[in-house]
Amino acid sequence: MRNFIIEKPDEAILPLLREKIDNLTKPRGALGKLEEIAMQIGCIQQTLTPSLRRPCNVIYASDHGITEEGVSQSPREVTRQVIHNFLNGGAGICFLARQHGVELKIVDAGVDFDFPPIPQLIDRKIRKGTRNFLHTPAMTREEMLRAVEYGAEIVSDCHDEGTNVISFGEMGIGNTAASSMWMTCLTGIPLADCVGAGSGLDPEGVRRKRDVLQKSLDNYRGNFEVEDIMACFGGYEMVMTVGGMLRAAELKMTILIDGFIMTNCLLAASRLHPNVLHYCLFSHCGDEAGHRLLLDFLRADPLLRLGLRLGEGTGALCAYPIVDSAVRMINEMHSFSQAAITKYF
Amino acid sequence: MRNFIIEKPDEAILPLLREKIDNLTKPRGALGKLEEIAMQIGCIQQTLTPSLRRPCNVIYASDHGITEEGVSQSPREVTRQVIHNFLNGGAGICFLARQHGVELKIVDAGVDFDFPPIPQLIDRKIRKGTRNFLHTPAMTREEMLRAVEYGAEIVSDCHDEGTNVISFGEMGIGNTAASSMWMTCLTGIPLADCVGAGSGLDPEGVRRKRDVLQKSLDNYRGNFEVEDIMACFGGYEMVMTVGGMLRAAELKMTILIDGFIMTNCLLAASRLHPNVLHYCLFSHCGDEAGHRLLLDFLRADPLLRLGLRLGEGTGALCAYPIVDSAVRMINEMHSFSQAAITKYF
Repeated sequence: MRNFIIEKPDEAILPLLREKIDNLTKPRGALGKLEEIAMQIGCIQQTLTPSLRRPCNVIYASDHGITEEGVSQSPREVTRQVIHNFLNGGAGICFLARQHGVELKIVDAGVDFDFPPIPQLIDRKIRKGTRNFLHTPAMTREEMLRAVEYGAEIVSDCHDEGTNVISFGEMGIGNTAASSMWMTCLTGIPLADCVGAGSGLDPEGVRRKRDVLQKSLDNYRGNFEVEDIMACFGGYEMVMTVGGMLRAAELKMTILIDGFIMTNCLLAASRLHPNVLHYCLFSHCGDEAGHRLLLDFLRADPLLRLGLRLGEGTGALCAYPIVDSAVRMINEMHSFSQAAITKYF
Repeated sequence: MRNFIIEKPDEAILPLLREKIDNLTKPRGALGKLEEIAMQIGCIQQTLTPSLRRPCNVIYASDHGITEEGVSQSPREVTRQVIHNFLNGGAGICFLARQHGVELKIVDAGVDFDFPPIPQLIDRKIRKGTRNFLHTPAMTREEMLRAVEYGAEIVSDCHDEGTNVISFGEMGIGNTAASSMWMTCLTGIPLADCVGAGSGLDPEGVRRKRDVLQKSLDNYRGNFEVEDIMACFGGYEMVMTVGGMLRAAELKMTILIDGFIMTNCLLAASRLHPNVLHYCLFSHCGDEAGHRLLLDFLRADPLLRLGLRLGEGTGALCAYPIVDSAVRMINEMHSFSQAAITKYF
């Protein structure tokens, strides 16, 4: 795989950030998480006056062979239908992007549909859906490496356009199933605890999904190394996200982590390059079973708990204004001396 | 006290709101709290297309006689100094108000300082600080009734200007002490569990504050009816907030509830008129000891837990974009039929 050079941000700046924040006109620590976020972004950007520029949410979309086994409530055609909804501005992520001035990039990573050329749809289709991992690896190693590369390229484009804060979303019927496989293989948490209802399975459906995934795990002949697991069970959209996250960290962007699937992509990315975690803010804990466990595994304390389970980056964008608030705090609040206020601690 | 006529919103519209939301292009319930908020505001406004107009954060400010007993980390002069900081745009609430397009109204309810006439500072000063409730009721009944009236008037003005969503904040050194007294008297929760560090007392300071408040409680000769408790221990800014909240509910505004002090004001308001609760969204659970207990007492599930303890309305404004998202969701997301997506449940 391509070599990503991801540096740990230099923490020598942290005491200076702390001092600046402690001199703002509020009791010490009184803005809680906003202060922590400002510290982290100041450290990432190595400045006492951090900024958020051209926020972008990249959605990689793809289909999954495992849907042949009935692991999702939704039929496969929904993947391509929802992409049209993205492009027409009608999806959940669209109103959030408009609200917060976040650019959307929609990438066809492997949707099972022949789209006509559409300017707003970025074509990086590797194949029309992955293979059915119950019987065979979902993708070849070559496809996996190509997906990492494509994912990274899109983020390089964002960087060239001036973006320094990015989130990732996904669309792909079947991708909670794929994510549960990554999670159990990469964390050792039992499969049953990693499987949930996805877009709305009933308890019987969840049982069926779990059985299919257990058989897939039993059939697995790989070596449990991260690249093998990514290829064997992954979706193209998930692997592209891994590449995107690694490239974003390499470029010292702040990364907002969305829900269950995106957290699994970060899990894989962090196995390849642990330093990627320094660039991440965990936006929310979603309602998909397993997300809470995975966040605990990563020792992550997410900003929001709003019961979301839509994907697309919606949780990341709901958290975006809080991140923006943190940056405004450190730049715009007056200090005690500036405001002529008695410093009371 | 003035009679507020607060109607319970007609819930006949709820099934229609539910149907509209369930037809938006997402799995049923997948936008979690955003869906609940949209239901509530649709019900308050009695429409399937709710809107947020001219959001306003009203800050009532006042001083407290009990500060003579050393119950706060901060000297009394900080109240007036912070008001200047509000007016100069340097306080925590200011960058949030700018970020979210929320108007700020700053009201002098009883600050111990002679301000020169300042156009942006609304003068409703009842007295230069309350009396010391260790020895005597903090305010007279007449002052209390006048404060309710003033608080309501300010909200009437907001309504006349087109506001239909409002939050309240406060500034007043000593007002966590006053709030703890309201909380213990109105809920029966033991005083010790209602007392916290305020703007930054150390454990010894918290002990001293608790002792002073226990003595004040022992000295209390009132009848534990809400109006008496409001007058005996209240701050003018707190009583004005009660009046403001009641008037906002009477005018069918959506009310965002901020932190510990504002939640105590709502507690008092809801004792006078329980229907006020139908108009409220709980924005956050703050870090002041007692806030979590009080929210539980009110069976409130706040939107955010960001470790805030600044007051001013900062928690309410941090939550505002989420409320805005909910309203955008119900207005802007496309339905399954509109988007030609297979409805998969």
